[in-house]
Amino acid sequence: MTPAPARVGDSVDAIDTPALVVDLTAFEHNLARMAAFAAEAGIGLRPHAKTHRCPAVALRQVAAGALGQCVQTVGEAEAMVAGGIGDVICTNQILGPSKLDRLARLARTARIGLLVDSQEGVERASQAAVAAGAEFDILVEIEVGMGRCGVAPGRPAAALARRVADAAGLRFRGLQAYNGRAQHIRSATGRRDAVARAAQAVRETQAALAAEGLTAAVIGGAGTGTFRHESAAGCWTEIQVGSYVFMDREYAELEDESGRRAPEFQHSLFVLAEIISTPSPGRAIANAGLKVLTTEQGRPLVFDHPDIEVTGVSDEHAVLTGPSGAALALGQRLRLIPGHCDPTVNLHDWIVAVREGRVEEVWPVAARGASR
Amino acid sequence: MTPAPARVGDSVDAIDTPALVVDLTAFEHNLARMAAFAAEAGIGLRPHAKTHRCPAVALRQVAAGALGQCVQTVGEAEAMVAGGIGDVICTNQILGPSKLDRLARLARTARIGLLVDSQEGVERASQAAVAAGAEFDILVEIEVGMGRCGVAPGRPAAALARRVADAAGLRFRGLQAYNGRAQHIRSATGRRDAVARAAQAVRETQAALAAEGLTAAVIGGAGTGTFRHESAAGCWTEIQVGSYVFMDREYAELEDESGRRAPEFQHSLFVLAEIISTPSPGRAIANAGLKVLTTEQGRPLVFDHPDIEVTGVSDEHAVLTGPSGAALALGQRLRLIPGHCDPTVNLHDWIVAVREGRVEEVWPVAARGASR
Repeated sequence: MTPAPARVGDSVDAIDTPALVVDLTAFEHNLARMAAFAAEAGIGLRPHAKTHRCPAVALRQVAAGALGQCVQTVGEAEAMVAGGIGDVICTNQILGPSKLDRLARLARTARIGLLVDSQEGVERASQAAVAAGAEFDILVEIEVGMGRCGVAPGRPAAALARRVADAAGLRFRGLQAYNGRAQHIRSATGRRDAVARAAQAVRETQAALAAEGLTAAVIGGAGTGTFRHESAAGCWTEIQVGSYVFMDREYAELEDESGRRAPEFQHSLFVLAEIISTPSPGRAIANAGLKVLTTEQGRPLVFDHPDIEVTGVSDEHAVLTGPSGAALALGQRLRLIPGHCDPTVNLHDWIVAVREGRVEEVWPVAARGASR
Repeated sequence: MTPAPARVGDSVDAIDTPALVVDLTAFEHNLARMAAFAAEAGIGLRPHAKTHRCPAVALRQVAAGALGQCVQTVGEAEAMVAGGIGDVICTNQILGPSKLDRLARLARTARIGLLVDSQEGVERASQAAVAAGAEFDILVEIEVGMGRCGVAPGRPAAALARRVADAAGLRFRGLQAYNGRAQHIRSATGRRDAVARAAQAVRETQAALAAEGLTAAVIGGAGTGTFRHESAAGCWTEIQVGSYVFMDREYAELEDESGRRAPEFQHSLFVLAEIISTPSPGRAIANAGLKVLTTEQGRPLVFDHPDIEVTGVSDEHAVLTGPSGAALALGQRLRLIPGHCDPTVNLHDWIVAVREGRVEEVWPVAARGASR
């Protein structure tokens, strides 16, 4: 693990760059806003730890009313349970026997769920749970428009649920109905229509489950781009939002029903960088590249400086273009808004949490790199 | 640091997935081929550690005749010196006082170089070297077509070199003339023309240095896409190639003089992944996404299966499309060729080095995350 880039109590000017920084005021606004939404809507909130990989963030989400966490990998589940989270759903297909053994060991001391979309998945999860003397909650993952994992909705899903209900060591808890593609449709009507189709698939599956004598106590899904639509649809019981705590460039570019960009969450996550070269007026080079932020969903934006554009990103550099002036002077610090927060956080060992110019906390990204 | 995904002696089938794997036969072919080229051409070989961040790789490059290593960050320099590399050039502008102090401490026990492109850079490097009782080698970075850092070639560069030569604690060693853009021009003639323009800038600067009574003992630059051109130009003394040891998708797509893709280096680096869901015939989902490989220079290719295409990549998943059959069956393992090797390696704590179906070594990526 790399040394932390700051100490509690430091001025923000003393943070070594490049560093991942969270503005606590914006972060707490986001936490509170989503918690209030879920409470008012009467829907469960289970934020996704794939966004932060950081127990310090997860604990704050749970303190604000979240049921627990979602994770995507066994390593993330281990970090969350070790960090004090007692209720975790792994929203993924886990097939490797050694991974299932690790998950089953966790299930001795925490409530652990996972997804299945195949008979093989049911059998392997059952074997691991029985061997560990533990039980898994199981959600049957149904395909609702994402084109990734998931069994067909309706009778195929209900048939798999029956196998889960009959398997030793497994508790059939419900359905996973997540359409990641819907999160990234820029227009609000496009997102709403995609969720409506997913809701139809859920209802069809609920009917098929009823014919099997089964009920889905949990229906999970939704993300930062669509959670209001899933909540309004009435069939989901838990929203699995992740990015709302940090917000990245892409989510901020989603449009509301009137076609405007009016994000209800604030950018709280930044890569703090410093200008190390000023080769010509209006052009500068900052010490933040592909190893501290990812660009597959767009280059970063420069916070507080909409007139400065990131026109290139290489391994350790960002090329900045804008008007000549102090913001592009040697040694100047800038906050970059990542294009995509989840893989960007995963590049860092530490999140420096700041408020009003001071470092208030330094959080380890405990599950950084934990993709196994 | 995450647990290693394999142990020495394991069968490759026992490697936990997703994992970063190096095929030693291809890796050694690449090492030997570049070393033979440099020896025959009579040019220095200083491979770039930003590609591998791994002392085990660096030591093999030095054993094959390399002068030492290039690095891009102070953290990489520390890892290389700690790993046994005694001659390191940081091919970057380092301005932060605490970073320069760390670099100066290294310079007490290893030969350490760095770049400058500003008077401020000269002054700060000098102060740090003097304070530590050490000396830095200094290369003046000139702009040769990259549009990133670098002082203008010719007299501005020579004037800065004069300041270096006159500063306490600094040895003027020469010029850095690297055009990263040239590496990525697909056509051979385009790459050759770009290098010819860079060579002209170098010669112009050499003449200006002579007028100052200075000589550039070292002229550094070049990369895997262009090193033959820089060598043929006659003015570079060291080639700073990185990707040749691993090869990624993008470098393999460069064309030779006849317009063909005929890479002289082999793919040695792979992300080993496993199929975790087979939702429909000819489509499968593997457990390798944006947290184990980067896609900003293209999605990965599937090694040994040109008929299978990666049609989507999310945080922990790759969507594979191809003909139905065993290669897309549940549990099947596939080797993915990353789009861009440098940032992909930086996602991993371990490189599993394999030969003929067995794990021969497991290398820590000691400088993973070391961007400060």
